[in-house]
Amino acid sequence: MTSFNIVLYGGFETLDAFGPAEVIGQLPQDYSLKFHSLNGGIVVSSQQVPVDTLPFAEMDQSGILLIPGGFGARKLVIDENYVEQLKLFSEKAPYVLTVCTGSALLAKTNLLNGMKATSNKMVFEWVCSNGTEVNWIKKARWVKDGKYYTAAGISAGIDMLLGFVSDMHGVETAQTIANYIEYIWNSDMDNDPFGDAVTD
Amino acid sequence: MTSFNIVLYGGFETLDAFGPAEVIGQLPQDYSLKFHSLNGGIVVSSQQVPVDTLPFAEMDQSGILLIPGGFGARKLVIDENYVEQLKLFSEKAPYVLTVCTGSALLAKTNLLNGMKATSNKMVFEWVCSNGTEVNWIKKARWVKDGKYYTAAGISAGIDMLLGFVSDMHGVETAQTIANYIEYIWNSDMDNDPFGDAVTD
Repeated sequence: MTSFNIVLYGGFETLDAFGPAEVIGQLPQDYSLKFHSLNGGIVVSSQQVPVDTLPFAEMDQSGILLIPGGFGARKLVIDENYVEQLKLFSEKAPYVLTVCTGSALLAKTNLLNGMKATSNKMVFEWVCSNGTEVNWIKKARWVKDGKYYTAAGISAGIDMLLGFVSDMHGVETAQTIANYIEYIWNSDMDNDPFGDAVTD
Repeated sequence: MTSFNIVLYGGFETLDAFGPAEVIGQLPQDYSLKFHSLNGGIVVSSQQVPVDTLPFAEMDQSGILLIPGGFGARKLVIDENYVEQLKLFSEKAPYVLTVCTGSALLAKTNLLNGMKATSNKMVFEWVCSNGTEVNWIKKARWVKDGKYYTAAGISAGIDMLLGFVSDMHGVETAQTIANYIEYIWNSDMDNDPFGDAVTD
């Protein structure tokens, strides 16, 4: 069974983490879902959800990594030690997924340099400033480049995770999950109704 | 500020609780979001999300109540003491919202008798069996009757909460939140693409 590690930090965006958790949690035979933070313990989201986490030191580094966004990311992009840890985990992970401004954190590791990626459309300029050598795509619900999956803002993470499941297990499995969670899946990664909000 | 109390229990469905939390969490000046379980402490969702909760005894009973669904609800609908507690909270709450099979728990209190409600479409027959005097609506994304809001399955909770915000604060506020979370809001409570799955 593959570990699916979701990185949490103070001020993460609730749905960035738990939309994907809902989707991956529908495949309990394939993925072991775990929540990690730097030191472990209770971590509180921007919307005041307190989550119990395991420390980074206990992470199964062979697992898939998901990095959510959130206001807390603004402090962490300038925390060199934190970014270095994310870089080590990301290098080892078979797949790295980000939602919203989680792509700014991943961009700071330089692992996205020369690659295509997307992010939240409301703070797109700020995200781009954290990775000037990334090929940022303004109009995309999510982007896949090599082992990196990056989603647009917040709820786009649900669409991307269904896309990830489709890539790994087939589109029928993804559609079955979408139906089960009664979710109207935007399955076209290029269909981004919010991309036009980017004016920079 | 109004308390917005989300009831959690072992085996709650992740997105049932955190989709709504994401929406309400965008109005921190209006609502204080809190998570409660019978005895407090760490409660784990069906998808293995461990959440730190306050005990029922510490609930601000003047607050709005949200009851998510999940496999854990199947044990609780036959727990008379638990249902009695939910009944007391629901009677005092200015609004009671349920997502998915959370409406089965609310139906067991008899407070929905003679009222319109909906629920998850994949287990609709089971839900109906928990409230034979409820006017269950098969094809609805969500239903409002008096102070009770009931949503269809899992992700429908996001649509309903945006509808709730629209009712309380106007449709522009709701649409602004939908845009911020880059969510393609199904704002028509009668538009239920999954209602046809109900065959009973």
